[in-house]
Amino acid sequence: MSQPASSTNPKGPPPNETRTEHLARWAANLQFCDIPTDVVERTKELFLDWFGCTVAGRHHPAVSAIRQFAVQMGPSSGRSELVDGSIVSGTSPAFASLINGASSHVVEQDDLHNRSIMHPATVIFPAALAVAQDISANGQEFITACVVGYEVGCRAGEYLGKGHYEKFHTTGTAGVLGVVAAIARLLKLNEDQTLSAIGTAGTQAAGLWQFLLDATHSKQVHTAKACFDGIFAAYSTKDGLLGPRDILEGPRAMGVALAPGSTIPEAIDRNLGTDFAILSSSFKWHASCRHTHPSVDALLSLMHKHAVAFDDIESVVARTYQAAINVLGLSGSGETVHQSKFSMGFVLAVAAKKGQAMITDFTEEDLRNASLRDFQSRVSMEYDKEIDEKFPERWQGTVIVTCKSGRKFTESVYFAKGDPEFPLTRSELESKARSLFAYGDFHEHETIDRLIQRSWNLDRKNDLHGFSITQR
Amino acid sequence: MSQPASSTNPKGPPPNETRTEHLARWAANLQFCDIPTDVVERTKELFLDWFGCTVAGRHHPAVSAIRQFAVQMGPSSGRSELVDGSIVSGTSPAFASLINGASSHVVEQDDLHNRSIMHPATVIFPAALAVAQDISANGQEFITACVVGYEVGCRAGEYLGKGHYEKFHTTGTAGVLGVVAAIARLLKLNEDQTLSAIGTAGTQAAGLWQFLLDATHSKQVHTAKACFDGIFAAYSTKDGLLGPRDILEGPRAMGVALAPGSTIPEAIDRNLGTDFAILSSSFKWHASCRHTHPSVDALLSLMHKHAVAFDDIESVVARTYQAAINVLGLSGSGETVHQSKFSMGFVLAVAAKKGQAMITDFTEEDLRNASLRDFQSRVSMEYDKEIDEKFPERWQGTVIVTCKSGRKFTESVYFAKGDPEFPLTRSELESKARSLFAYGDFHEHETIDRLIQRSWNLDRKNDLHGFSITQR
Repeated sequence: MSQPASSTNPKGPPPNETRTEHLARWAANLQFCDIPTDVVERTKELFLDWFGCTVAGRHHPAVSAIRQFAVQMGPSSGRSELVDGSIVSGTSPAFASLINGASSHVVEQDDLHNRSIMHPATVIFPAALAVAQDISANGQEFITACVVGYEVGCRAGEYLGKGHYEKFHTTGTAGVLGVVAAIARLLKLNEDQTLSAIGTAGTQAAGLWQFLLDATHSKQVHTAKACFDGIFAAYSTKDGLLGPRDILEGPRAMGVALAPGSTIPEAIDRNLGTDFAILSSSFKWHASCRHTHPSVDALLSLMHKHAVAFDDIESVVARTYQAAINVLGLSGSGETVHQSKFSMGFVLAVAAKKGQAMITDFTEEDLRNASLRDFQSRVSMEYDKEIDEKFPERWQGTVIVTCKSGRKFTESVYFAKGDPEFPLTRSELESKARSLFAYGDFHEHETIDRLIQRSWNLDRKNDLHGFSITQR
Repeated sequence: MSQPASSTNPKGPPPNETRTEHLARWAANLQFCDIPTDVVERTKELFLDWFGCTVAGRHHPAVSAIRQFAVQMGPSSGRSELVDGSIVSGTSPAFASLINGASSHVVEQDDLHNRSIMHPATVIFPAALAVAQDISANGQEFITACVVGYEVGCRAGEYLGKGHYEKFHTTGTAGVLGVVAAIARLLKLNEDQTLSAIGTAGTQAAGLWQFLLDATHSKQVHTAKACFDGIFAAYSTKDGLLGPRDILEGPRAMGVALAPGSTIPEAIDRNLGTDFAILSSSFKWHASCRHTHPSVDALLSLMHKHAVAFDDIESVVARTYQAAINVLGLSGSGETVHQSKFSMGFVLAVAAKKGQAMITDFTEEDLRNASLRDFQSRVSMEYDKEIDEKFPERWQGTVIVTCKSGRKFTESVYFAKGDPEFPLTRSELESKARSLFAYGDFHEHETIDRLIQRSWNLDRKNDLHGFSITQR
């Protein structure tokens, strides 16, 4: 582990180095000047998108409960801020990220990295922002850490693979590895320390899908704890804690224990430094579970193309991949607003009726709407082998609509709106952010304008305090 | 979930209740007056044993690093104490238990529950003591919570089974469930809340064996984080956080994800309230990994019975169960004192040479001792099908010694010293505690006497502050 970052080998590590060592060496040595401009710009866009999500989720009961835990267990003041300013004296980075991390995953509008099937922003940004504030890192150091965090987290998620995702919430399990790598970079840990910190993070990796059956708050627990646990691993390493050196591919490591038969070893370090994970993360445009998005896009496109109206539709078949069926099949009919975003039938009903599925389109009232519920009951999912084989490289979808008139239409999409191949514009991102602020009951337009401008200028900031809707 | 605890059905839950619900209902309703006297007395013995272990481990670098994390991230004062008094102003229960939990597992002298293959004391006592201090619970409430914690943790561990233990450090994964149940009882959560808290704890369950290959500090991380995460789950639940209702047997829960094909469902709730887990936990007499104990006992017995001396021995074959071979086979030759306690060869060498394997019998000097290293190289492990089939119900061992003279002896043990069938006396426990205090560089005999007496009177204490070697 002595070569400089610039000598990273796109074909893999040298023979005397494990893939995890190769990844850690790269992570410990990345400099801001090594990062291409499009990666820097995309980081800012993802950051603003994350910030809006964090404001939108701030009133959720899971966030309140976790905030209360921080008040009881954490310090009475600190240099790290809550995005909603609700602990005015600040707190330590571990607790600030715990709360911001919980909050940013509530409304299901944060980004998704397709190949790893994880949501990186909701774990990387809260942790990196809180630590950057704690240690007075500047904007370029922050961006560098976030790029490192995305890379390590997404590569770990892709390594663990589809089989892992069937049982585990990859945003938690791979997320904690992304967090620790970002924080290790901010704390300027060396290569060996970074490897060790990644090991300590990985042995804490957790997050089960069981909560989907109960409409419970574990999804927020997973993101919150990925932030906290990753910060724990990085700070403890700085103070001498040693972690296992091969937590991904070792004989008793994450691959063997959490993803037997499912791992993709080359994902750990292929094209490191040239193929940036942050460029392949997708923005979410619709407010529902990402697995519904290809079907929503296909349905909206079909309805527009063939002038089909909500009331014309007799039935919809959504042909999709197995992971979507697994996740969406668990949520039943959608008894809560949150669950309803995980019901393919309800989401397609909302999209068909309203022409969109934005955050304000899922309400308590909608849950009681008979026409939506009726439409929902006429939607079914079908496994599509061809689509499944492409997943998670591509998140495709096909819908087959049978009209009451007897007419039948089929529409397929190969990318969803917001995918790297079909990204949101800055203007769309701003308007999405404004809708997220509004959903989070924050309407001070001057502050919102200022926060948006600060995001676009992130690399020119010497101080990252003040990313909060309440001015201190 | 409305029946009183006294109506628990030893044959299993009523048909409208899951096993996990049954267990949570029992846990939420246990009263001190329901606990048999021998269970209360054993709790005190296990508590003293744990306290000694915590003092013994206090100078370990993993403990120092975790303490430093608590100083940076936690409050500057609090009602919960460190056993070694090293944060004089106290801290919050989450951080006190994080540090005490790490410290108590360092010297590998804490108890072991055979059937679950987990170490309950090192997670249950630090968490319960810290919270009892925080909320001013009395000794009877503390004991009740610890009995609940042992029960839920050990039953979860036994449910997950041998297959789980092959990949996961059960003390971490089942430990967090024990912790949350103990804390839920102290916080007087109701049945539904207790079930929910157990769910939130279980979705955080983590701990991999990979660290055994590197002599790293993850074992302390697992116990520390089981405490912290369980406290997080219980306190957050009190403030409204919802967890999944069947985190053990649910279709996306711990059994399916962490122990496929290995689970023992009836372990969750059979004989609840009559067969107390705390009575089937074993004290450790030798200072080495518990998997070496049956072999150490057999070897010492054989040497005594046949008057075989250290220098007479040509070779030793230790016939054992697969889990022992898995764990002990990972540590190589034992390059550190900690690793050496995981080497069957080195442990048997120490025992044969010194006639015992107490905590002071494993030193840096011993690692460089040629006669011990030579003996070590002449020890081998062999899989024994019959022994394996009994494990983990019984931790048996057989050794076959071939002498330089050509004589050959075989000795088997069916229990190890310290097993429930062969427990330590109070006098042995006191002398073990004194050796642990000495190992932890604490020699103030009056304080030690007082702490021992306080432990024997635990059920008569109205305040649990002051269980610390430094008087505040």
